[in-house]
Amino acid sequence: MNALENRRFILARRPHGTPTRDDFRLEKTPVPSAPEGGMVVRNRFVSLDPAQRGWMDDAPSYMPPIPLGDAVRATTVGVVHESRNPDFAAGDWVLGLNAIEDYSVVTPGGFTSKIDVSIVDSPSRYLSAVGAVGLTAYFGLTDAAAPRSGETLLVTGAAGAVGSMVGQIGKILGLRVIGIAGGAEKCRRLVEDYGFDVAIDYKSASGAKSVDALSAEIAAAAPQGVDILFENVGGDVMDAVLLNLALHARVVLCGLISEYNAPEKIGIRNLWQVIVKQATIKGFLIAGYVPRFAEGGAVVAQWIGEGRLRVDEDIQHGLDNAYDAFMRLFSGANTGKLVLAVD
Amino acid sequence: MNALENRRFILARRPHGTPTRDDFRLEKTPVPSAPEGGMVVRNRFVSLDPAQRGWMDDAPSYMPPIPLGDAVRATTVGVVHESRNPDFAAGDWVLGLNAIEDYSVVTPGGFTSKIDVSIVDSPSRYLSAVGAVGLTAYFGLTDAAAPRSGETLLVTGAAGAVGSMVGQIGKILGLRVIGIAGGAEKCRRLVEDYGFDVAIDYKSASGAKSVDALSAEIAAAAPQGVDILFENVGGDVMDAVLLNLALHARVVLCGLISEYNAPEKIGIRNLWQVIVKQATIKGFLIAGYVPRFAEGGAVVAQWIGEGRLRVDEDIQHGLDNAYDAFMRLFSGANTGKLVLAVD
Repeated sequence: MNALENRRFILARRPHGTPTRDDFRLEKTPVPSAPEGGMVVRNRFVSLDPAQRGWMDDAPSYMPPIPLGDAVRATTVGVVHESRNPDFAAGDWVLGLNAIEDYSVVTPGGFTSKIDVSIVDSPSRYLSAVGAVGLTAYFGLTDAAAPRSGETLLVTGAAGAVGSMVGQIGKILGLRVIGIAGGAEKCRRLVEDYGFDVAIDYKSASGAKSVDALSAEIAAAAPQGVDILFENVGGDVMDAVLLNLALHARVVLCGLISEYNAPEKIGIRNLWQVIVKQATIKGFLIAGYVPRFAEGGAVVAQWIGEGRLRVDEDIQHGLDNAYDAFMRLFSGANTGKLVLAVD
Repeated sequence: MNALENRRFILARRPHGTPTRDDFRLEKTPVPSAPEGGMVVRNRFVSLDPAQRGWMDDAPSYMPPIPLGDAVRATTVGVVHESRNPDFAAGDWVLGLNAIEDYSVVTPGGFTSKIDVSIVDSPSRYLSAVGAVGLTAYFGLTDAAAPRSGETLLVTGAAGAVGSMVGQIGKILGLRVIGIAGGAEKCRRLVEDYGFDVAIDYKSASGAKSVDALSAEIAAAAPQGVDILFENVGGDVMDAVLLNLALHARVVLCGLISEYNAPEKIGIRNLWQVIVKQATIKGFLIAGYVPRFAEGGAVVAQWIGEGRLRVDEDIQHGLDNAYDAFMRLFSGANTGKLVLAVD
């Protein structure tokens, strides 16, 4: 890259359904200056997450929509390029909510924190194992799901960044763990790489399996029912699991990735099973756990250090490649936490 | 009726979608005899409830499906006709899970309890105010919803038996109460008869309102969002409310009556709002509160005695009329707890 320019991945229009290349454009602007009390961060790693798709819509959410003409909002890890804030110095490594661009302007009061890159093998770990992904898996399972040893946990999107950690943490907690993923290779990884007890492929040779077919496979794998559903997918996959809930089941609703790009959502048709089984669905956002981040990060780091937890990253390269990299989230191509290295 | 015969409302085949007259038949059999340790109850009032529609399907539920050729399962209030159980004598008034028929055989161990009809103006009250309906409203709101004074409660199916009690209990607890019902007359009753703060009509002159139109009306009535949704309806009505949840909202999922007769369910398409608002959905069945029935019944009876709670009954007459009476649940015709008097 040219040190004098700032490449920015701009939201040009709101996607209708699956984002297309024309919904975005790459802009080149001069490197910005730090505002009074703020700073400029040189981004090195950008987190690519399903949540970003939601921020592109003009719909009520926990954050305002990304304004048209702005760079796409993203969590990034980077180095302070220029600081006018006494708490940060040029050269400090920081984690913050910025955007897919070379340089981000951080105004005072924004969410930015210094990180210690000496304790990790790559600064990108702050976007995976010890970042929002790892803490979502940790608090979503250990706290929101209220697990008891011996219970049956089912994870959808199990080969994804969050799902693969949830399943492994489930095994550490003494749960029986079933994972649903798409394709034989992902299912092989669930069992061989991540230690799941059972992997169920939601795809067949002719496409996605029917709700009934999937439900029958889940029933065979969990004859006593599913005590905890860690839901990342929604749609037919979720409907199939709902037919197999145990009494007083808990559903941690973490994501609904199958629906994010659907202009006409299928919807969840088996919600009546939540009544029948006196189950609970908890909408989960890591934002609710900010005061406990240090606690969770320490536990996750320890498990990784002990070799009990494996966290894969899918590192893509180059801002010019941002669209193709982002779309790996929805094609099922990524194998671990998706990260864009800003080079 | 002829004292020597037992009229029974039989499930002849499983309904596909909306039950038709041909799904049932009226059988006349001799009056049964009490089995060893059991009894025969002469039913006087039969409860007609949306849950019965679910029991007609061959699908996993909290109770086995009603067998084809059996009388339709129902909660009834009646008088012991013949007893071979030392705890019950002929002439005792009892409440139990029996069927839509003149005489029910009660085997030992079944759910039947004596009731004191001297404290109520009609024995049918044990099917409404101080029965499952009243206790569903009471525990669903006071316990499952964890309400705090000043919060906003929205009730769907608000003019129904459960809904109208939930709204009134909400006012007693100091909540702001919004009700959604179908038609101007029901909406008038919500405000004038039951004391709701706001009534929203989900119907327009041209049919059901769109999710967007309904959502806009809810937003106007609850500008700070809905803290508690007491859900009896599902479908588009629920989807519209989900777009207006407050942060950390609680949804008590009590019923989904709009879907019970739908062969192809529409499904809930705005479940992502449960994530965004970190909300909780609790599947509610009164069965979970059996140990607290006496406590709840006493409170409800006191409120009724003090004139703070009004409980309407829609009494239909005659076993021969069972099909037409039952269908009032789904046509929106009933105005209060639907009960069939067995005469």
